[in-house]
Parts: sequence; structure tokens; C-alpha cells
Amino acid sequence: MADGYNLCIAVIGSGTIGLSFAALHLSHPSKNIKVIIYDPRPDLNEYIESTLPGYLNATSPSLSSLRASNRLVLSSSLVSAVESADVVQEQGPENVSFKQSLWPQIEAAASPSALFWSSTSGIPASIQGANMQAPYRLLIVHPFNPPHIMPVLEIVPPDQHASKAYIDKTVSYWRTLNRNPVILKEEITGFVANRLSFALFREAIHLVNQGVVTAEEVDRIVEESMGPRWAVKGPFWSYHAGGGEKGLSGFLDKIGETVQACWDDAGTPELRDGEDGKEAAWRKALGEQVEGAYGVLQERDLRERDEKTRSVLEITRGD
Amino acid sequence: MADGYNLCIAVIGSGTIGLSFAALHLSHPSKNIKVIIYDPRPDLNEYIESTLPGYLNATSPSLSSLRASNRLVLSSSLVSAVESADVVQEQGPENVSFKQSLWPQIEAAASPSALFWSSTSGIPASIQGANMQAPYRLLIVHPFNPPHIMPVLEIVPPDQHASKAYIDKTVSYWRTLNRNPVILKEEITGFVANRLSFALFREAIHLVNQGVVTAEEVDRIVEESMGPRWAVKGPFWSYHAGGGEKGLSGFLDKIGETVQACWDDAGTPELRDGEDGKEAAWRKALGEQVEGAYGVLQERDLRERDEKTRSVLEITRGD
Repeated sequence: MADGYNLCIAVIGSGTIGLSFAALHLSHPSKNIKVIIYDPRPDLNEYIESTLPGYLNATSPSLSSLRASNRLVLSSSLVSAVESADVVQEQGPENVSFKQSLWPQIEAAASPSALFWSSTSGIPASIQGANMQAPYRLLIVHPFNPPHIMPVLEIVPPDQHASKAYIDKTVSYWRTLNRNPVILKEEITGFVANRLSFALFREAIHLVNQGVVTAEEVDRIVEESMGPRWAVKGPFWSYHAGGGEKGLSGFLDKIGETVQACWDDAGTPELRDGEDGKEAAWRKALGEQVEGAYGVLQERDLRERDEKTRSVLEITRGD
Repeated sequence: MADGYNLCIAVIGSGTIGLSFAALHLSHPSKNIKVIIYDPRPDLNEYIESTLPGYLNATSPSLSSLRASNRLVLSSSLVSAVESADVVQEQGPENVSFKQSLWPQIEAAASPSALFWSSTSGIPASIQGANMQAPYRLLIVHPFNPPHIMPVLEIVPPDQHASKAYIDKTVSYWRTLNRNPVILKEEITGFVANRLSFALFREAIHLVNQGVVTAEEVDRIVEESMGPRWAVKGPFWSYHAGGGEKGLSGFLDKIGETVQACWDDAGTPELRDGEDGKEAAWRKALGEQVEGAYGVLQERDLRERDEKTRSVLEITRGD
């Protein structure tokens, strides 16, 4: 509680995820969330002035008004950013030793009741918090990019030290922002959303690599079949529906043989170098194909994608 | 060309795919497509009267008016259904010997210039057409269910006999219905859309089976991350965007290690029976979990899904 605001959130790191989360907190319906953005970059002020407005929604106060009312504060000092915070949300470099050295500094400077969240895309809380006094305070809050638009958040507590009270407080806050936190029961590699996405991506790479379809054709197929289907109803619901009265079991009875045949025939491209030390040949060819199809994407392409995504979610969630 | 209509399509089989395709043809903007539904079931008349209206769109003429004007004809004779047809579209039982015996009958009765399409979810054209005189006439036109809503169609010609003229005519017709036909370059098991979908489904089963998340949580995660993302932009575009200026290659440079770690750790549940001859234990548990979460889905659940899907596609395709 600072400056009369209900909650103060220190956002550590101002890359695209940090900016997106900052904008999301500032959009809180209570208008009573203070955000401190910490980043050691020397041009922090100019950088935030030029980038953050792109993330704020249309009804948000202007950046200058947010700053004048201290609802948004920029800081180049980690200690002063976190000492008054109720929540510290980290999105620094994806590097184990960086995070293991950062968290004890945050823990030493922050209030004993502050919540600690990491947006890491892959480093589990139990590893990040190895040097903390109270590692149970640290939770992964993993977004799907960009978090100011995508509702789901994967909450992954450290396997050995989960604290129900910290998880409950975290979940409550996100629900007030109309987000959908899902608590994973295990600290699994890559968490859930990326594992699912990468499984499809792997098969997509294989099919392009085999010459069955182009990368652009894969995108068209997905955009006009699974994408809209799964935006409305996820895979289990959908296959449950596909089985009629017998549900998912009926579906597996009916076309399980085809499913198994596809699994047996699925490709296994590798990203690691081959035994000869060479990069996999498909990487270069695929990169060139995608570059040829789409060119270098511009800011406006991403904005258009984000606007459409927002409209889709209004339909599917009734937002 | 029959009865003054521009094109006559014989729909062989009146299951959900057949009805959905019939409704789609009847929605053609030219209002000039005649549809003959063939099915040997004795209650064909009552069955179509009670089911087809659920597939017709709001602006369609009534069933009785479609029938009175001969725009829709029901037939229990295969020969009379196909003899005047410009297109024969088959969605009979998923059974090789059934299809291998059906196509020569159709070929013998139909006009020499008629197009032949199969909606099979897995039996390649070169196998179905093994007993045909002119197997190059047969194309797989594989929809994503339900085809009166989902725009994409996978066109899969027989590997050895593809005829460009037949493919071109087929593609042209579907484009007049604002569909998006994608021509596969190989008769691959399961075609493309299902292979991609089943790859994600496999990993989803694994994660539920491991107890990391419930089936319902998987659905929520997908509905609020990949689903809306891929409805707007497919996986290659999305990861290309994720790599910034360096595109897909930059994305793979940046988080390829996490991608590979997820691939290495991916699960491989099997649908076939184990070496002990027993059904995999996860099938029963998963079926019960999904049944417990969603119950038996009703007609209105599917209609609601279809209406939302239609609205999503209006946004993503600008329909």
C-alpha cells in the first residue's frame, strides 16, 4: 500500500512482456494499482515514453497523467523499486545464474509479505529460488504472449515449497483482472501451454520438411480449422463432442485407429545439431520459406493481430 | 446441369458431414446449385425433414420450398442420384472395401465429366479408387467438422493419377463458396489438419495422465492462448513474429533449447492395447474425467459452439 493506492506492483524488466504486464496492471478496473517499472537501462525514461503507450488500452489515462499521479513510476534502482511493493513481478533475462542472484536481493529489500512472481518461459521456481531464505514465496506466473490480451496464466509453485496462502492471494488478484489462472500440479519442463503448442509445431515442421504442404499452407489450415475451434472449445471438449452420446470414449472407439496411425507416423525433427556438429538442414530452409512468405513483420502487423485477438476473445469469453 | 440449375451435386450418405455439406451447397450465393441427397435408409424423408433444417442458415429458403423447386431432391437409388450429377460427393462408412466397391458403381452410372469427391477422414484416393476405370477422377475433399462452418478443405489427389483439370475445377467451385481449399502434395496418413491436431492431443493426454493438469484445465489453457492466437495467425506466422527482426530463425535461436527440451520430454501415450492385450489404463480414466467435467453434450451445446465459431471466423476472415 503506497501513496494511497490499493496495491503496488514492481515490474522488474521492461521488455515486451514487462511492458505488456505493466499496461495490464494499469488497466485494473479499480484504477487503484500503482506500477513501478524497474530497468537499469540508461534511456529508461525515453524508452517507456515511446513504447508503453502502444500497450495501454483506449480508455486508459495518458502516460503523462499516470506519471503525474504517481500511478506509474520509473526506477533505475532495484532496492527503491521493490521496497514499497506488494508484488514483485520479474521478467529479466532467461538465465539461471541471473535469476538465482536476483531473488535474494529482492527478498532482502522487499516487505516480508510481498508476493514474488516470475514470468520465465522455462526456469522453474525451485531452481530460481535456490538462494532465497523463503523460496516458497516465489511463484511462476507464466503468460501467453502478449499478456495484456491473452487471459490465461500458468501458476507454477516450487515443487517442494508451495505456499497455499501465496497461491491464493496470487489467484485472487488475477481474477480481479478477469484473467484465468491455472495452477499446475508439477514443475514440468516448459509448463503446459508451450508443451502443447510445441507438439503441434513439431509435426508442422515435419510436414513442411517432407514437402506435403508449405509453412503458409499450414498456417491457413490451422487458422481455419483448429484455431477457431479451440478458441471456442478446447481439444477434450471437442473430441468429447465428436463421440456423440458416448463422448470421448466413443470418439476414440470410432477413429482411434486413425489417431494411432498419425501418432505412429509423426515426425521428430530435432533442433539440436546433428552428430556431425551441423545445424539441421531444415532450419535454414524453413526460415527462408517463412521469411519469403511473410517478410519482416512490422509493428502494425502485430497490432492488427492483437486487435483481432481481442475481438475473438470478446466472442469466446463474452468479455 | 439439370432442371435449369447451374450445377447438380449428389451427396452420398446423410450423416452429419453429408447434411453439413448439403446445407453448404444449398447456401451457394448463386442459389443455383441443385443437391440430391442419396441414402438407402428407409426413413430418409422424415430423417431429412427433422435434421437438415438445423444446418440451413437463417437466410435459406425453407426445406419445403427447396424441395418444391427441386433444388433439393432425396433419393434412395444410387443410380438415379448420380446419373444427372455434375459432382458426386461421398461420405459413406469409413471402410476400404465399401468404398472400393462403391466408386465403380458411381463411375458406371455418372456422366463421364462428373467430379468425384470423398470426405473420408483417412482412406486415400488411390486406395478407394483401386477398382475404377479412371481413378484420376477421384479426389479427397477433407473438411474440418462441421464443413458448413469451417472454411478449410484439404484436397488430396491420388498420388499416381492426379488430374490437374479435375483439381482446378474442384478448387474453383469451393472458392465460389468462400472456402479455402489447400492441395496436399502427398497422400499422407491422416492428411494435415488431423495430424497437427492429434499431435497436440497426444501431449494433452500425456499431461493429464501425469496429473499435471486436468482435461478441463487443458481446455481452458488452449481456449485462452493457442486457440485465439491460431484463429488469427497460424503457428509459423506467430513464431516468426516471436523472433522479432530475425523472424523464425531468431525465435529458434532464442528459445530453441526450451523447444527441444519439451520435445525430448513429450509423452507418447498409445491407443493400441498393451502387450498384455489390455486397453491402456489412461483411456478409461480420461473418458471418466471428461464425462464428469462436461456430461453428455446436447444438440444446443454444439449449436452454441457453431454460432460462436461462425462469429470468430467473421472476425478472423473478415467474412
